[in-house]
Amino acid sequence: MVSRIGKEIEISPVELGSQIAKRVKINMASGTPDPRKMPIKEIKDAYSEVLNELGPKVLFYPGAGGQEELIREIEDKFLSVLNLTKRKDEKIVVTSGAQHAMELLGKYFLENDVIAVENPTFIETFNALKLRSSSVIPISLDPSGIDVNELETLLKVVKIRLLYVIPNCHNPAGVNMSECRRKRLIELAEKYDFYIIEDDPYRPIAGETPQPIKNYDNNGRVIYVSSFSKIIAPGLRVGFLIAKEDIAEKISLMEQLDFSTSTINQYVVARLLRKGVVTERSKELYEHYKSKMKILVDSLVDKGLDKFNEPKCGFFLLLDVGKDSWNVFHKAVEKGLSFVPAKPFFLRGGDTMARLSVSVATKEEIIEGVKILNEVIRNI
Amino acid sequence: MVSRIGKEIEISPVELGSQIAKRVKINMASGTPDPRKMPIKEIKDAYSEVLNELGPKVLFYPGAGGQEELIREIEDKFLSVLNLTKRKDEKIVVTSGAQHAMELLGKYFLENDVIAVENPTFIETFNALKLRSSSVIPISLDPSGIDVNELETLLKVVKIRLLYVIPNCHNPAGVNMSECRRKRLIELAEKYDFYIIEDDPYRPIAGETPQPIKNYDNNGRVIYVSSFSKIIAPGLRVGFLIAKEDIAEKISLMEQLDFSTSTINQYVVARLLRKGVVTERSKELYEHYKSKMKILVDSLVDKGLDKFNEPKCGFFLLLDVGKDSWNVFHKAVEKGLSFVPAKPFFLRGGDTMARLSVSVATKEEIIEGVKILNEVIRNI
Repeated sequence: MVSRIGKEIEISPVELGSQIAKRVKINMASGTPDPRKMPIKEIKDAYSEVLNELGPKVLFYPGAGGQEELIREIEDKFLSVLNLTKRKDEKIVVTSGAQHAMELLGKYFLENDVIAVENPTFIETFNALKLRSSSVIPISLDPSGIDVNELETLLKVVKIRLLYVIPNCHNPAGVNMSECRRKRLIELAEKYDFYIIEDDPYRPIAGETPQPIKNYDNNGRVIYVSSFSKIIAPGLRVGFLIAKEDIAEKISLMEQLDFSTSTINQYVVARLLRKGVVTERSKELYEHYKSKMKILVDSLVDKGLDKFNEPKCGFFLLLDVGKDSWNVFHKAVEKGLSFVPAKPFFLRGGDTMARLSVSVATKEEIIEGVKILNEVIRNI
Repeated sequence: MVSRIGKEIEISPVELGSQIAKRVKINMASGTPDPRKMPIKEIKDAYSEVLNELGPKVLFYPGAGGQEELIREIEDKFLSVLNLTKRKDEKIVVTSGAQHAMELLGKYFLENDVIAVENPTFIETFNALKLRSSSVIPISLDPSGIDVNELETLLKVVKIRLLYVIPNCHNPAGVNMSECRRKRLIELAEKYDFYIIEDDPYRPIAGETPQPIKNYDNNGRVIYVSSFSKIIAPGLRVGFLIAKEDIAEKISLMEQLDFSTSTINQYVVARLLRKGVVTERSKELYEHYKSKMKILVDSLVDKGLDKFNEPKCGFFLLLDVGKDSWNVFHKAVEKGLSFVPAKPFFLRGGDTMARLSVSVATKEEIIEGVKILNEVIRNI
């Protein structure tokens, strides 16, 4: 007999897709940012600098809640990139990336509660919440984000503890939530007494988008989660959350249970922020992924594969392949293309959906990948 | 309403002692290894080398379970330092330090179960287990380790799920478990059907000690937890556990929930192992801390403060100060000395116990610290 989490945990389709992607030529599965765009020299310099200048201090155990130096740089240099207002009664808690933030939030908030998520939602993050919930209710997603009317219909009859949303460059659907829906979510959270987890790792590379949901929140209803994985690199495992002081302090204490956020990596991110490396990359990366996405969109349309909503930003496009997407996946892998069959992102439906990523593949590979995909779909 | 963990989490006395230690002259609180002994140049070189030679690969998301390159180096270069036998049906899982391993193990094994621990035990680690247990039973510790007879008396009437032990350079008691007790624990685990978590972060700097408990285990009863925090530096947050394949695989999957172990730091540790930096430091560090501990022991005896068992290795000495140790602590801090009042390490007793650490303080500071401690004790 093991715990519920021990029993129910299983390999995520993203991890599975990623493992298979390593063995094939064209990787349209991975959510890793483009390796060609990682600031390797700047990162190397930052490690040398912090070790030279600060010495053993950067190699001590991390303080629970995060290193002050990084928190200060986030406030000075990063909140403006996010267009994020931090209120006086809120605190930043540094985490080992956004996924770790979700694990902490799941661990803090949930004890067999009911939660709601977008349908589809990001399965990996969602797992940290799902495995601690009694029930997870899917709310439809359309090109303007979560269907707030459907949500309110639910809220009238079911008490939820948390709503989990990805407002920008949605994973896997690629949509941005409209401004009026963001405002509406705050009204609903007040009226029906629940918390909102705003998972926003793509915002630094999202270009022009509405303000964060958190900016409309005056009562600590929103916990904002951010990450340096997309704007710097995921391998550092540094992200953060912002929450009202009482919640933030509890989450900080809970970090004593895993003490997992590397001290030196926090100093490296702080250094990169201070040097402006992060801010100057924001626009460039938005345009980089935008131009790759355009290639994907054009290639798909060209082949008559047009059952998708055009993504506003980010890495992912959700395509309806019209056939069982696991079936398409296995055939595609044989021909050298990997993507993620998107059924597991859906609590309802999604059998024929495929998540195509433009982050790792080159433009040529994207064109070639769509060609393979088209052949496979036509021949099933 | 929040989760049980959210409700019950509180600041650990070690963290509190460490925070106060930052403000005073003599730090005999911290469990951080000696900053003067951290291999800063080697670490800096390793970061540069892995970034130069392997490029973006070291900046990708970590694979669940750990990077193969690191697992290979642990097998080739580190298990022999630990005198550890890894069976064919066992696997290594890389974690963000030993504390993260404990969090994963607590999360995997426990759902309001009964567990047993040494009295005293390491409070921080213990918290990851305690907050998921219905009941925690303390078993006496003496200079040869856990009292196995007391344990068996308990086992005859109570079913436990896990036993948590620190066999070498015990934190906070400084003792090593005898060989015959290690063997006896395996017999008991078989007979009474429970698992043993062998938390062994100090072994790389422990000098000559009996074999790991795990070496006597043929049936996957022991989960061995190790760390590079003491032998390299804690700020990298890299450790690992070894468990039978089925458990190890589940724990790996559970890492998908936090994905917290920095990829680049895993490559850096792998590089340091390959270059022999770790192995060559083992004996040197043992002797370094041993010589500091001798200063502490001699200074205490010199002042007539002799209510302690002489530690075999590691950073900590547990002193009975004969008075309420929180009271002594507050007075000592006023005079510039910090240590950790050890009551929270005890489930039973311990009100007059103090954990004194030799890891961060210099030899001169240790002598001065004992002088302050003696004055404070005499004047209460």
